Amino acid sequence: MRALRFDGSGVQIEDVAEPRPCDETVIVRVRLAGICNTDLEIVRGYMGFHGTLGHEFVGVVEDGPEELLDQRVVGEINFACQSCPICAQGLQRHCQRRRVMGILGADGAFADLVRIPAANLHPVPDGVTDEQAVFTEPLAAAFEILEQVHIEPGRDCVVLGDGKLGLLIAQVLHHAGARVVCVGRHPEKLALLAKRDIDTVLLDDWRGDRVSLVVEATGSAEGFDRAVAALRPRGTLVLKTTVSERPRLDLSPLVIDEIQVVGSRCGPFPPALRALETGAVDVDSMITERMHLSEGIDALRRADSKGALKVLLETS
Amino acid sequence: MRALRFDGSGVQIEDVAEPRPCDETVIVRVRLAGICNTDLEIVRGYMGFHGTLGHEFVGVVEDGPEELLDQRVVGEINFACQSCPICAQGLQRHCQRRRVMGILGADGAFADLVRIPAANLHPVPDGVTDEQAVFTEPLAAAFEILEQVHIEPGRDCVVLGDGKLGLLIAQVLHHAGARVVCVGRHPEKLALLAKRDIDTVLLDDWRGDRVSLVVEATGSAEGFDRAVAALRPRGTLVLKTTVSERPRLDLSPLVIDEIQVVGSRCGPFPPALRALETGAVDVDSMITERMHLSEGIDALRRADSKGALKVLLETS
Repeated sequence: MRALRFDGSGVQIEDVAEPRPCDETVIVRVRLAGICNTDLEIVRGYMGFHGTLGHEFVGVVEDGPEELLDQRVVGEINFACQSCPICAQGLQRHCQRRRVMGILGADGAFADLVRIPAANLHPVPDGVTDEQAVFTEPLAAAFEILEQVHIEPGRDCVVLGDGKLGLLIAQVLHHAGARVVCVGRHPEKLALLAKRDIDTVLLDDWRGDRVSLVVEATGSAEGFDRAVAALRPRGTLVLKTTVSERPRLDLSPLVIDEIQVVGSRCGPFPPALRALETGAVDVDSMITERMHLSEGIDALRRADSKGALKVLLETS
Repeated sequence: MRALRFDGSGVQIEDVAEPRPCDETVIVRVRLAGICNTDLEIVRGYMGFHGTLGHEFVGVVEDGPEELLDQRVVGEINFACQSCPICAQGLQRHCQRRRVMGILGADGAFADLVRIPAANLHPVPDGVTDEQAVFTEPLAAAFEILEQVHIEPGRDCVVLGDGKLGLLIAQVLHHAGARVVCVGRHPEKLALLAKRDIDTVLLDDWRGDRVSLVVEATGSAEGFDRAVAALRPRGTLVLKTTVSERPRLDLSPLVIDEIQVVGSRCGPFPPALRALETGAVDVDSMITERMHLSEGIDALRRADSKGALKVLLETS
């Protein structure tokens, strides 16, 4: 089968052996996959990952237990051991022995077939298109915020960053009843939110009025100071950005203003699938381009280009 | 009257005019005051404060409303405007127009007399000695953690730092039912906790087993990385340290392990006074020396010397 692989120095389309199911895993034939910023970071060396890239996908179960065969599914990316104390607490996404699809020790979904634990699969409702289903994983990461932080009706929130994740987070918080302002650098990206009646402002025009919740989703090291400066005393800062640098940071304002910082990573799939089904979150407008797996190298380049949002890879 | 003052370059004992009560303030005759690390930081330039130092004190009301006269009192250090939206929310300690005794815009308690809003005073119970009462303010800062973080019985906690604040925090968490280990560099300071049946370990011998709560009270920039490394996924890091540097920090582990960071500053006086009254917290062992206000410059030096804990200043 074909797979888009990273070997530590470059990316190639390779012809590799088909995976076989083992233990509690199944084989999914990938229909559509999405390129995430993490994929672009990995190609720059993040996580030291070597193997098949990709962790956002929708596909059909091709090999595995009979009750799963032919189901259209999306899959959670953290492959937990299911036996350590962390897993016993129900924190499978934090299993210290986990492998992570296309990120850490497990081949990803930029391929014809992908192997994944059956426990990680979620069936996709009929009303959700393949294009929409690919957004389940990043949308779940946006919903993670609602699992971690209490959003009172009308809570003042600033979302810093108008990348893919920022746009999803702004919509999730808006739909949860928060008063959201999304601050970004790209008028055309912010316009997608304005269509959903979500307030937006260009970074250069933003006055930085202090609010009780700021979500830092800029993907850049400068976002932290800016986020802290926009928080009221006792406010909450949700951190979504991981950067490989170690920037110089002043944590004193956290202490003086008793700010709470909540690191936030992967989230729950079921609410994400429901939001896609009901249309509570618009992802269709976020699709920049649909390319074929065989054009994978160009697709990564396209996803990394200015103004791009989601680039999809199709396999058939 | 005499006052120990900092003018931006040096510290002097000066003869200054006695303060008069105005608006809602009273005048307290200071009996005993305590030197805090913040005082030492101010003398190094922190906060850019000029004026009379000191914010930990016990004294007797000498001028003010009749019902307060002759009462033995301690006082909260944040002087709030009582009229802004933050004060209206009951967050007086975070008033954005606040002055802070001996730290920001208000003369402190290393003097014969100090002026303080009547609203900031708390009467000292008879069973609490002057020496103990001086610890009310830093002990309140330790109790602030219980206001911010839920301490389930037996919760595993590490307190990083065996300075004055670390020793108070370890005792407060221990008394609240947590399983506390205090990690420090000073065997003689850690011994004070061992007397209270609190586990301690020297930093060099610490294995860094991961726990669900770490309190960073080292007062040094290196504490942060060490604290993060000692946290389980979804753990909580209480930050007490403010440093003037901007160290290079890696926040990615906060995101990946979904760590929560809680900045923590001043706290509530009533539980601190109760803990002093019942003896739940031992502060007597933490007194290194008692010196006279007229020896204030030497006293600051003593407080800054290796191995020192609390140095007290008496006025009479």
